[in-house]
Amino acid sequence: MLRFNSDYTEGCHPAILERLAETNMEQTPGYGEDDYCARAAAKIREACGAPDAAVHFLVGGTQTNVTVISAALRHYQGVITAESGHIHIHETGAVEACGHKCLALKSEDGKLTAEQVAAYTDAHFADESFEHMVQPKMVYISNPTELGTIYRKEELAALSRVCRERGLYLFLDGARLGYGLACRENDLTLPDLARLTDVFYIGGTKVGALFGEAVVIVNEKLKEDFRYHIKQRGGMLAKGRLLGIQFLTLFEENRYFEISAHAARLAEKLKDELINLNVSFLIESPTNQQFPILQDAVLEGLREKFAFTYQARVDETHSAVRFCTSWATEEEHVDRLIAEIGRLMARHLGE
Amino acid sequence: MLRFNSDYTEGCHPAILERLAETNMEQTPGYGEDDYCARAAAKIREACGAPDAAVHFLVGGTQTNVTVISAALRHYQGVITAESGHIHIHETGAVEACGHKCLALKSEDGKLTAEQVAAYTDAHFADESFEHMVQPKMVYISNPTELGTIYRKEELAALSRVCRERGLYLFLDGARLGYGLACRENDLTLPDLARLTDVFYIGGTKVGALFGEAVVIVNEKLKEDFRYHIKQRGGMLAKGRLLGIQFLTLFEENRYFEISAHAARLAEKLKDELINLNVSFLIESPTNQQFPILQDAVLEGLREKFAFTYQARVDETHSAVRFCTSWATEEEHVDRLIAEIGRLMARHLGE
Amino acid sequence: MLRFNSDYTEGCHPAILERLAETNMEQTPGYGEDDYCARAAAKIREACGAPDAAVHFLVGGTQTNVTVISAALRHYQGVITAESGHIHIHETGAVEACGHKCLALKSEDGKLTAEQVAAYTDAHFADESFEHMVQPKMVYISNPTELGTIYRKEELAALSRVCRERGLYLFLDGARLGYGLACRENDLTLPDLARLTDVFYIGGTKVGALFGEAVVIVNEKLKEDFRYHIKQRGGMLAKGRLLGIQFLTLFEENRYFEISAHAARLAEKLKDELINLNVSFLIESPTNQQFPILQDAVLEGLREKFAFTYQARVDETHSAVRFCTSWATEEEHVDRLIAEIGRLMARHLGE
Amino acid sequence: MLRFNSDYTEGCHPAILERLAETNMEQTPGYGEDDYCARAAAKIREACGAPDAAVHFLVGGTQTNVTVISAALRHYQGVITAESGHIHIHETGAVEACGHKCLALKSEDGKLTAEQVAAYTDAHFADESFEHMVQPKMVYISNPTELGTIYRKEELAALSRVCRERGLYLFLDGARLGYGLACRENDLTLPDLARLTDVFYIGGTKVGALFGEAVVIVNEKLKEDFRYHIKQRGGMLAKGRLLGIQFLTLFEENRYFEISAHAARLAEKLKDELINLNVSFLIESPTNQQFPILQDAVLEGLREKFAFTYQARVDETHSAVRFCTSWATEEEHVDRLIAEIGRLMARHLGE
Repeated sequence: MLRFNSDYTEGCHPAILERLAETNMEQTPGYGEDDYCARAAAKIREACGAPDAAVHFLVGGTQTNVTVISAALRHYQGVITAESGHIHIHETGAVEACGHKCLALKSEDGKLTAEQVAAYTDAHFADESFEHMVQPKMVYISNPTELGTIYRKEELAALSRVCRERGLYLFLDGARLGYGLACRENDLTLPDLARLTDVFYIGGTKVGALFGEAVVIVNEKLKEDFRYHIKQRGGMLAKGRLLGIQFLTLFEENRYFEISAHAARLAEKLKDELINLNVSFLIESPTNQQFPILQDAVLEGLREKFAFTYQARVDETHSAVRFCTSWATEEEHVDRLIAEIGRLMARHLGE
Repeated sequence: MLRFNSDYTEGCHPAILERLAETNMEQTPGYGEDDYCARAAAKIREACGAPDAAVHFLVGGTQTNVTVISAALRHYQGVITAESGHIHIHETGAVEACGHKCLALKSEDGKLTAEQVAAYTDAHFADESFEHMVQPKMVYISNPTELGTIYRKEELAALSRVCRERGLYLFLDGARLGYGLACRENDLTLPDLARLTDVFYIGGTKVGALFGEAVVIVNEKLKEDFRYHIKQRGGMLAKGRLLGIQFLTLFEENRYFEISAHAARLAEKLKDELINLNVSFLIESPTNQQFPILQDAVLEGLREKFAFTYQARVDETHSAVRFCTSWATEEEHVDRLIAEIGRLMARHLGE
Repeated sequence: MLRFNSDYTEGCHPAILERLAETNMEQTPGYGEDDYCARAAAKIREACGAPDAAVHFLVGGTQTNVTVISAALRHYQGVITAESGHIHIHETGAVEACGHKCLALKSEDGKLTAEQVAAYTDAHFADESFEHMVQPKMVYISNPTELGTIYRKEELAALSRVCRERGLYLFLDGARLGYGLACRENDLTLPDLARLTDVFYIGGTKVGALFGEAVVIVNEKLKEDFRYHIKQRGGMLAKGRLLGIQFLTLFEENRYFEISAHAARLAEKLKDELINLNVSFLIESPTNQQFPILQDAVLEGLREKFAFTYQARVDETHSAVRFCTSWATEEEHVDRLIAEIGRLMARHLGE
Repeated sequence: MLRFNSDYTEGCHPAILERLAETNMEQTPGYGEDDYCARAAAKIREACGAPDAAVHFLVGGTQTNVTVISAALRHYQGVITAESGHIHIHETGAVEACGHKCLALKSEDGKLTAEQVAAYTDAHFADESFEHMVQPKMVYISNPTELGTIYRKEELAALSRVCRERGLYLFLDGARLGYGLACRENDLTLPDLARLTDVFYIGGTKVGALFGEAVVIVNEKLKEDFRYHIKQRGGMLAKGRLLGIQFLTLFEENRYFEISAHAARLAEKLKDELINLNVSFLIESPTNQQFPILQDAVLEGLREKFAFTYQARVDETHSAVRFCTSWATEEEHVDRLIAEIGRLMARHLGE
């Protein structure tokens, strides 16, 4: 069974394991107050061109989203998200469990537009019953989105402007950030993110680490007392150095970007070859998640040797599914996947 | 200024004030453990044909919704609601502040269908990532809805069946219940509600009381320890007898239904006369809230003498607004409203 | 049965009922945005010598405590309280249900000292694990306390100073405020409270109103968006004018203070007479709650004709109980209570 | 600098690192649904003699406590804990952030007695205002406690009996469980815990793992839908196999118990030698945390070469501190610590 169902099916980049082994019996302070975390944070600040940013390391994505969002909001405030946003759909109501409402806006491609955010927020404050409604205070976007799409620099800049004009915090969930930054269509950089958002995170779990997300807080207001929030939400790892060591390793020798580029290239290959097979897609994604629409009969055959994620029914005989590549994907496996899809499509041609 | 902007612009039915005056210096136990509450509860159980129902009195609607919903759900469970549901839009995230997500479904008319609820719930449990999503456990409906529409008996029965098959609690918000039960199109009774829902409430605030909502809990599982929840959510009135006395008065001499019928009749008159004036409506409402679409120029003129609620822009020159009648509305005022609209429409004809 | 078990056994001051009747059919805006609320707020600001204070009206004490506390705190912050504080013991964890911890300090008399608060707060910030502990940010005191004791002006001034030096908000729960301000030992005034606290409330429920608490917010930071909090916590009364009318009536003609003085005088009479009978007290209380220690045999006899609250066992044959007077207490009833206690004590003398 | 300040200063047992390296590029399903987790759970069930127990793997202690407690309680219920309990003091109010109150009982030694729990619970239900107070529903104990003490089998059996009679869940926090089970005074086994508690966890973070806690749920009621709770509280590790592999390795070849015994033996050596030096202790601890009372001058000298935790001031010239041993402690380091303390005590003798 070859797994393309997610981008966290393997362990971690071998360089990380080596470093963990080398440092294993060193004694360090706990809770992220060790030297590895300090050095990793410095590297990330440097990569972001943000010498004053606060950098914190958390274990996983849901925890990170919850900690950042609940740290930013007062009780009556909510977070604007695309209706497909991970926080809205796939975190078992973790944000609501902290008392905050997800204010979900329609989105075809997983992205929010500056116009949407402006219109929603302005309508809130124009409504005579505004105090009877949750006050929008933060905008949550993911890049790449849950549908593999990415923000163009001008789109992010517009969102940023709209947020700043209205006093909204802009938070970018970068669980798959590497795969976004490394893809052909991308024109954003880490310094762009540091300049345009208030807080974002650089995903490790899906991009080469065993686990870990690096939160970069740019807005001064969001920095205050952030470690209390981490502890309260269960995200303060006792052996915090494990996070420091991992991010230090990922941000040395351009590793984070190189392994991301590998995944991006294989996703592009998969996409190009499927297009050659006349496959259409649920959505145009330039990143490591691809959503082809295939015959159910093809999918049934494919399932015997390949793992993938069911996404949505398209018509009576076709469904969209998701294939992910990652830092760990072997090119030969992608080739076998393409070949098998081609073979099955030919067999079921005309059905 | 004549107010049609809501159904809580006056105080209460005079019989209630009299009773409050008569009993004012009596000494009673606090927190709803007095004899008036006991007698009012007995009357309500009788009216509902539900001798085993638990009846509790709370002060207001948001408080009641929050208390009932949070009492029914475990942390990871949510409540299905129409996207126009009061809990989703107009309670400043009170349900989320208790940790629970509103699972909002599309609705044109403010109602949920049995099919929608079944499809949503079945999709949840069929999804391989079901544990990553909020589990639906309760269905919240309002009758009349926020748009004035009502459920037919067969619709409610279908919802009830779908809920029972799937282990969902069915909760009916009856903030304006009287106005629903008293309207021409209605075929539901209090005993129907007691039979088809798990819990519902009979609104007092908008139907003749100074304040107060009577929660009727039919499902045994929801009865346990409910008073702890009331206290925790700030809804346990020290002088609970005020609620008992009010509901006792409303449920004597058929008063609740008679004053509701008064409002329903005046709403029908308003509606019929506006139809005669060729006014169209945002939504077909049979109850005390009417949503006519009028020229902005007409509305501007109307605003000088009448208060009403802005609902939505319809086109460049027309908006939908809301007029409410209530137990307290004087027929002469409705007549003046109709006449004024007619006069203004004539003046702005053809603009 | 004569009830001395609490100070909310009757309805309200007759002047309030009259005013409710007079205004009953007036039409007003809802949610506290009517003219009565505005006028009552103005009167209270004037009485407090605090022209810039924000005044809000809520229905009950638990709701008020929860709304004020949760509005002031961020998620990781808690509220310091005496271990006997109402929020810690008698509100079914309403504060925790909003996510905030009560940081309970020992107290014999229901009061907190400036030294305690300073020591606790300083210890928090001196602890190397401070981020692993709830950060103290607010101090909750009640005046009179749950044990009937009151703060001297110099004590409150010291608390205020300690709080301001440390960035803590000082919140005074005045559910029984009138009975404190009206007692012989008191040297505080409303302007003192406005000067020394950040927010406090003036209790109506126990002091002449049907229900209602007037929150006075002095600190600018706590004023922002407070009505969102009221709505979210279920405290925004639809017919808000009912609160405005009640407080307007209470603050006219010195009524609030006169009816409080009545209760205070009767409590002092009860206390003096019991002292004459050689009764000792669980605690020295100068206000409307008195906690005498009586023989169990005496209490058993007393229970036939009088309602009171059991407070605590003192020894094998004696218990402390609570008697409350209020604005509504008749002097003759106090006389009968004293006489009956005297008679029962004589009968059980030497047992 | 030699660190005795905590039991999580190193990485993990080398066998774990080896296993992580061996399995690194295997592809597995995510979220704990892999085969390693299944095998580790089976091993733990076997070790506990509890074939029907549900076993879940979480990342850290606070997260585990919060998930277990919030999964067990309804909104108005709280958890009884010793006032020194980790959940009450050192988790930044994480339990309260989920809406639940810690009901803290006095304790000199970090333990709760069956009598205390019975008395507290019985008093709750006997109080006429019981609905105004948080209902006790769970008892939280730690073994070893935060003060290093342990429960005797008869003590735990008595607690268990009291809990079952009253419908309370008994939850044992085993963050340092190995060090408790491996110490000389212990007479408890894993099967005892599975028999006497409703849910407990086996700590990995402090006992040989990089991170990880294994929750063992025995009570059927607590098993339902537990994975929703894990996800909601941010504890569902994407690469769940990391937890499975670690616990599998720890529970092979008796490793968990052997490495625990190592730490226990070194703690006993430290304790015995300090007793020989006439050092007294803040508390009599039989486990890997030792709390000697030393002269401040000695501590000042010691600090140059050794890290330890400040615990409490004892008198003007003495303080209690904490030294921890662990699976990773080298005996030679303990010897150096003892020697240095002896040297410094001799130098400061008579000061």
